[in-house]
Amino acid sequence: MSFSIVQLDDALTTSLQARINNKTKPPGSLGQLEQLALQIGCIQQTLTPRFLKPHILVFAGDHGAAKAGVSAFPQEVTWQMVENFLAGGAAINVFARQNGLALKVIDAGVAHDFGRRDGLVDAKIGSGTRIYLDEPAMSRAECDAALAKGAEIVRALADEGCNVVGFGEMGIGNTAAASLITHALTGTPLVDCIGRGTGLDNIGLARKCELLAQAVRRAALPADAETLAVLAEFGGFEIVMMAGAMLAAAERRMTLLIDGFIVTSALLAATRIAPDILDYCIFCHRSAEPGHLAQLNALKADPLIDLGLRLGEGTGAALAWPLVQAAVSFLNEMASFEAAGVSEKM
Amino acid sequence: MSFSIVQLDDALTTSLQARINNKTKPPGSLGQLEQLALQIGCIQQTLTPRFLKPHILVFAGDHGAAKAGVSAFPQEVTWQMVENFLAGGAAINVFARQNGLALKVIDAGVAHDFGRRDGLVDAKIGSGTRIYLDEPAMSRAECDAALAKGAEIVRALADEGCNVVGFGEMGIGNTAAASLITHALTGTPLVDCIGRGTGLDNIGLARKCELLAQAVRRAALPADAETLAVLAEFGGFEIVMMAGAMLAAAERRMTLLIDGFIVTSALLAATRIAPDILDYCIFCHRSAEPGHLAQLNALKADPLIDLGLRLGEGTGAALAWPLVQAAVSFLNEMASFEAAGVSEKM
Repeated sequence: MSFSIVQLDDALTTSLQARINNKTKPPGSLGQLEQLALQIGCIQQTLTPRFLKPHILVFAGDHGAAKAGVSAFPQEVTWQMVENFLAGGAAINVFARQNGLALKVIDAGVAHDFGRRDGLVDAKIGSGTRIYLDEPAMSRAECDAALAKGAEIVRALADEGCNVVGFGEMGIGNTAAASLITHALTGTPLVDCIGRGTGLDNIGLARKCELLAQAVRRAALPADAETLAVLAEFGGFEIVMMAGAMLAAAERRMTLLIDGFIVTSALLAATRIAPDILDYCIFCHRSAEPGHLAQLNALKADPLIDLGLRLGEGTGAALAWPLVQAAVSFLNEMASFEAAGVSEKM
Repeated sequence: MSFSIVQLDDALTTSLQARINNKTKPPGSLGQLEQLALQIGCIQQTLTPRFLKPHILVFAGDHGAAKAGVSAFPQEVTWQMVENFLAGGAAINVFARQNGLALKVIDAGVAHDFGRRDGLVDAKIGSGTRIYLDEPAMSRAECDAALAKGAEIVRALADEGCNVVGFGEMGIGNTAAASLITHALTGTPLVDCIGRGTGLDNIGLARKCELLAQAVRRAALPADAETLAVLAEFGGFEIVMMAGAMLAAAERRMTLLIDGFIVTSALLAATRIAPDILDYCIFCHRSAEPGHLAQLNALKADPLIDLGLRLGEGTGAALAWPLVQAAVSFLNEMASFEAAGVSEKM
């Protein structure tokens, strides 16, 4: 599966920068919002960008390894939280609602039969991944299918007119998978990629470190392992599906809102497949999960907010969304020095 | 003029924290938003806080010293920007509009005759302050009048049912006044309180440093100078009026949204008059103006966003406002583990 992602050119950079500098404010005084305005103008190839039908996609999947003790919560919390999303009671529901983001929940591979449900996209690749301590989390065919399905979901969204999409996830055990992927793709020492996830105590954290080291030994991947081989080894279905969704989103010139540690593990994989995807990404928040730092360093990213969040679900993306909108608002709505009759710098 | 500000008690802390911990998320995973929810619940003395009629107040005033060369922009930009506020074209208009904040502009002492205008509160104490290089910026009577007027404006707002207020300002030369106040009230070396403001070059910055050192020598304030004496020496009218407005807001148990460097100089003064005001303050953003760091350290404050903003007008408060709302939204709208049927931590 290949994606044709166009590197952003600088055809509009000069005129966008002039438009930003002519706004009634000291030059540069909107800081990171000015860089955002420039980026979004370049993504949309216009001096007057507009966001249309903003969405958060929450991909859910189960991880065989959760049964081996990598998480502080039991595996059934994945499907219970999906039910919570469908009922509107989770953090991502609250923040998406507050900030005007439509929410779609995707069953990428939860170990539970939901039946047909309003608001739930059935994209189940399997009933949870296999236990990567013993064998690869998924087959290469399942990995390819997850990637393709993610792309298909985002293409349909683009066809409906959506041009900005935030990524979120739910899956008990998925910080462990994200740690393994981050270690494999960036070469960061495994221990620096591992954190407490949903809240392991010291004993739980030590056990998680041991189990993940065991998984790395079992997989015995070469240093230059192919990206999809890494994803198939460690999973999960929701992470692979997000990677496919991200690649399709950049291919369609959408703006991508990147959440925290697990979402960024999917993006890390996507950048290995198509590095130019980064041009389309806005890093929304800095997670308190320690492995996020290794990812952000690898991607040279400087997120918008840093509130000690470590909830997942796309909550960081939903919370940062008004700041992203503000970048477009000031570009389109602020008066210029000339129009407002304001004197310029002496 | 005295203000009766009640220190927040911890009568509700335990039950608020229990409510936060019972939400369907890993404990602590909403980071700073959880502390905010706790603070706002304590301010409003309820487990279900609500924000009502949120406002941004933008106080505008002129500074005699602007004519002596402390700013990169000419003094008339103050009134021109007030016109821009009234026309809806400034950054604060855009962000307040986007985020559902009502905006009031207050003429605290602009050197311009606006006449009677819709949307402009006439609270003019004088036509700009005097030049603090030669004499105090204002008389003690003017200082008292500005403080009282600020309090009066906020009391009227509270009487209308508003319970959350953000502070913003406009005044060419007011980073210089804020630097002098910060130096005088915190004892931070003057040079560490001074920045480029609206965009001075190196020569302009050196000149600003020289002029402000001259003002400090001329004023010759004792180390334990009374707070109002400091404010009267260096001004401006908008800063003093904000201090009065803040004190009245805390007295009425409103939530205060604190913007950047100039607003925090007013708050510094207010904390010297009534230290418990800090319980009611949310620090919205970390300004790129270097003196803000000295203020935040003095107040032990950790702002919500850090985007390199240095625009003023209350823009940092308006941009952070959705995060403040999010703290209340999750507290009121998220499901509990029990209600959602989600298993708790093992």
